[in-house]
Amino acid sequence: MNRKELINQIKIKRSFLCVGLDTDIKKIPTHLLELEDPIFEFNKKIIDATKDLCVAYKPNIAFYESMGVSGWNSLQKTLDYIPNDIFTIADAKRGDIGNTSNMYAKTFFENMNFDAVTVVPYMGSDSVEPFLEYADKWAIVLALTSNEGGLDFQKIENQNGKQLFKQVIETSNQWGSAQNMMYVVGATRAEQLSEIRAIIPNHFLLIPGVGAQGGNLQDVAQYGMNKDCGLLVNSSRGIIYAGDGIDFSAKVRIEAKKLQQEMAVLLSENQN
Amino acid sequence: MNRKELINQIKIKRSFLCVGLDTDIKKIPTHLLELEDPIFEFNKKIIDATKDLCVAYKPNIAFYESMGVSGWNSLQKTLDYIPNDIFTIADAKRGDIGNTSNMYAKTFFENMNFDAVTVVPYMGSDSVEPFLEYADKWAIVLALTSNEGGLDFQKIENQNGKQLFKQVIETSNQWGSAQNMMYVVGATRAEQLSEIRAIIPNHFLLIPGVGAQGGNLQDVAQYGMNKDCGLLVNSSRGIIYAGDGIDFSAKVRIEAKKLQQEMAVLLSENQN
Repeated sequence: MNRKELINQIKIKRSFLCVGLDTDIKKIPTHLLELEDPIFEFNKKIIDATKDLCVAYKPNIAFYESMGVSGWNSLQKTLDYIPNDIFTIADAKRGDIGNTSNMYAKTFFENMNFDAVTVVPYMGSDSVEPFLEYADKWAIVLALTSNEGGLDFQKIENQNGKQLFKQVIETSNQWGSAQNMMYVVGATRAEQLSEIRAIIPNHFLLIPGVGAQGGNLQDVAQYGMNKDCGLLVNSSRGIIYAGDGIDFSAKVRIEAKKLQQEMAVLLSENQN
Repeated sequence: MNRKELINQIKIKRSFLCVGLDTDIKKIPTHLLELEDPIFEFNKKIIDATKDLCVAYKPNIAFYESMGVSGWNSLQKTLDYIPNDIFTIADAKRGDIGNTSNMYAKTFFENMNFDAVTVVPYMGSDSVEPFLEYADKWAIVLALTSNEGGLDFQKIENQNGKQLFKQVIETSNQWGSAQNMMYVVGATRAEQLSEIRAIIPNHFLLIPGVGAQGGNLQDVAQYGMNKDCGLLVNSSRGIIYAGDGIDFSAKVRIEAKKLQQEMAVLLSENQN
């Protein structure tokens, strides 16, 4: 999916919600466990309950990989089930030397047809560039993450006082464009969004950390939204585990709807 | 495998060679393509030809993942075929927030029984610690990588003049010990090994980049070896693609043997 199509979807749905499919066999409603592929059946219900409210789905690859071969099958079936007008992100945090990143790009863009993959910038240009060689596909580069350990290195200042995550954005920004790169910035770091927007006014940002991790949607919109919205805000656990009975998907829909309605207001307030 | 057992294997075999199983269906001898599982058949021949010459195997996970479900099956069969007294490294470059790194650790340590996984430090403590919670298992943290892009961020100096990769080593060193952590340092960065040994005299280092990438074994030993050897030097393409005919594994053995013999001399010279 290209940038124009993504922006169009945000305008149509009045939403910049990304639903994180961190599907854990230990957390899904127990009545699904009798079915042949509980992971896929759960995702199917989540997708049915939220597809008109969100513009993106983000399966967390670790959760599928940890189930072995059956997990990869569940992931492929989930991806096939997601409507074509919804953006898909493989949250895989990949990145390696060039010939190896090529293989990772092939996995997620050719074999599985995701629109985007999250990538780690630590190994530099040749670890990210293979993901930028596909038309209408995206590399989403980690900049400032939402977790506690994100502060261990990402805010280290260089000799000019520039923090590492800003150097990562400035340098990697030269490898691609706002048409094929996004950045991950945790919602728990909303206070940094103005400074990030000063470096990359146009890029989309993928913002995890609203919900279970404590980030605030208003702050994210206030400091991070641009003229094209420019945000995909992810919620995983706060939505997908909202219910645990037979009717879990109704509760899932209520939580997703709450966020979508908040987003509709924020989009209007910011002339989007 | 614990540290003592690994050191013992190095002493017995007079080798600190790690063979990288970056098995690419496009590069293996064509006569194998007729077989049911060419990737596994290739790895089997490589293992048969090198198992008395090396102390570790390092499958590069990207290459298997890119083959889909059949790739994961080939990987599992390969792992099962590796003798128990040889150290196994999943070169996966994983790392994410705590609950997700838990899943990655489960994949490689419980489901697949690897001894070690390579991990990326960018997301900090909680992204690495789940890999340290398993007895006799190892997290191998990226410090200074062998690729060109490795210089984009890893050598940025902080306000005290300390380079990022040194800060990564110093900080992450507090999360574990020389019993459950190693560091990746590219052979193409051998000139940095003395400085790294000043910070972590006892840790094992995993050194890729000898061979195809141009690193030099003598330099690595001179600056990086410690009283327990403390090195695993990896060669992938230089060994596994040494031949391409019916007799490819004989050529593979010759290349592995050359490195092992050099290593035996270097071990003796350094009283190991």
